[in-house]
Amino acid sequence: MSTSPTLSAYLDELRSVIDTALRQALPEGAAPTLVIDAMQHGLMSGGKRLRPCLALMTAETVAPLVGLTTPRARLMALPSACAVEMIHCYSLVHDDLPAMDNDTLRRGKPTTHVVFGDGLAILAGDGLLTEAFGLLAASPSPVAPAGSPEAPADRRLRVISVLATAAGAVGMVGGQAIDLRAAGRVPSHPSEPMGERELREMHARKTGALIRAAAVSGAMITGVDDAVIAAIDYYAQEVGLAFQIIDDVLDVEGSAADLGKTAGKDAASGKPTYPALHGVEQSRRLAVDCVARAKATLDAAGLGGRLTELADWSLTRTK
Amino acid sequence: MSTSPTLSAYLDELRSVIDTALRQALPEGAAPTLVIDAMQHGLMSGGKRLRPCLALMTAETVAPLVGLTTPRARLMALPSACAVEMIHCYSLVHDDLPAMDNDTLRRGKPTTHVVFGDGLAILAGDGLLTEAFGLLAASPSPVAPAGSPEAPADRRLRVISVLATAAGAVGMVGGQAIDLRAAGRVPSHPSEPMGERELREMHARKTGALIRAAAVSGAMITGVDDAVIAAIDYYAQEVGLAFQIIDDVLDVEGSAADLGKTAGKDAASGKPTYPALHGVEQSRRLAVDCVARAKATLDAAGLGGRLTELADWSLTRTK
Repeated sequence: MSTSPTLSAYLDELRSVIDTALRQALPEGAAPTLVIDAMQHGLMSGGKRLRPCLALMTAETVAPLVGLTTPRARLMALPSACAVEMIHCYSLVHDDLPAMDNDTLRRGKPTTHVVFGDGLAILAGDGLLTEAFGLLAASPSPVAPAGSPEAPADRRLRVISVLATAAGAVGMVGGQAIDLRAAGRVPSHPSEPMGERELREMHARKTGALIRAAAVSGAMITGVDDAVIAAIDYYAQEVGLAFQIIDDVLDVEGSAADLGKTAGKDAASGKPTYPALHGVEQSRRLAVDCVARAKATLDAAGLGGRLTELADWSLTRTK
Repeated sequence: MSTSPTLSAYLDELRSVIDTALRQALPEGAAPTLVIDAMQHGLMSGGKRLRPCLALMTAETVAPLVGLTTPRARLMALPSACAVEMIHCYSLVHDDLPAMDNDTLRRGKPTTHVVFGDGLAILAGDGLLTEAFGLLAASPSPVAPAGSPEAPADRRLRVISVLATAAGAVGMVGGQAIDLRAAGRVPSHPSEPMGERELREMHARKTGALIRAAAVSGAMITGVDDAVIAAIDYYAQEVGLAFQIIDDVLDVEGSAADLGKTAGKDAASGKPTYPALHGVEQSRRLAVDCVARAKATLDAAGLGGRLTELADWSLTRTK
């Protein structure tokens, strides 16, 4: 089973909205073309757009609880969704650098530093990260159509705070530092073997934190109660982990053509993976448990719908 | 003439306040020690702290106009001042990388990538940039003492927007991209000779934009009128340019020991400088003109005091 036809069409629709918005997100015209070109390369090179889809989905899911229509909730969450994707894309541009993971291909295309050189790739990542926060603070938002509802300033500050914590030293940047050290790439700090506890911490910081912040930001910007936000945070934590485990499984099972990157690379680099620690079958069972917990939490909060379908899809997807 | 004794003591006092605040700014304890260590290296390695001093000085200067005491205006601007310095320090960490300017010494100390490796230095810069925005959005602020006044959310969003624009593709990141291309470090875009117009644009983006945003942020966070903010913006533009011109002059005249970096490096790399284009004497005259315009604008807006003294000092400083 792949994506259910309706979920698949819905995600395609969200991706189209997100891609249209992202094309308005950069300060084209006011900035040197050179750096905009490099930023666009990192931002518009495809991908599942999982994080911004999650932000829009949680906003739409909680909309009835705060008296918003679904279309207005989506418009209100659009700047947050774009900012999350810009942060995700900056992290990919920097992770691909020779000083980090040294990847030359992503989604079958040459990475930013291969096209523009290492220096400009560093700057393009810096620019995407900076513009993400600029987008959250800009009024009116460059990505929201005229007449879009704008969340109150205190709520927008809270979303900025959540995203900065998830992207910063406590979250993504900290997780990447743990990863870098494990790969023996930090001369001042010798590598130490990574067990399951460290692997979980690394994933929770490196990828889990931003996935949770994406889901939280979409709900938070609508002004929904903190109890609902907490349920969505837990849901995203569990579904994010399921995505990570299945990514590891697909990495073992997949081919370079399917994944658009070198298959089995993680295993080859000595980085521990769920299949390496538990085998493929037990890894899939761990992911199934994550999804069960995520769905139970949604149920208890009176939520569901597309978020439930997305949780199921995290297990059955083939790429 | 060096700094006037009172200005010198005042700047020392501000620097002490800023350094104390910056030591509270990073999420120590919640983040992996490794990445905090690298971020601290980039953040606490000395320097003039010009930008955060400017932010505090403009807040104090406009305080009477908005009915704030000087100490309360300073406390209100402290998070903005810290964020500006974190953004400045991140840019130095990234600029020093081998893929950019390849500097191994800054202020007489080994640069972040020399100590921690290129990968972790990239992450440390990313972390400083991210935490800068987190600091602006956090409530209560980790850098402000208990009981500090907090600006309303809409004003804080406006400051975030100003800083993001100054630090992003339109400002600092864009200016650094122009610089990188001029140095022949962007394989996809061949280097072109840089004339005075391009030199001015590069400086305006690379260093001028953040200096202006620093000054503007301190005034803006107090809630002062836009006309006063505009005067301070113009003042900072002119004083920022004077600082840049005198930096170039000191680079020609100075020694490695005085500046803590390799003297004459810009000239050696073929990058145009004000002394190279106009000679030392004419360059100093250009800086004098900048300062005269800055002071006239302050006078017209009914401002002055320490900001006037700082403008004068920009010409007479010896390092």
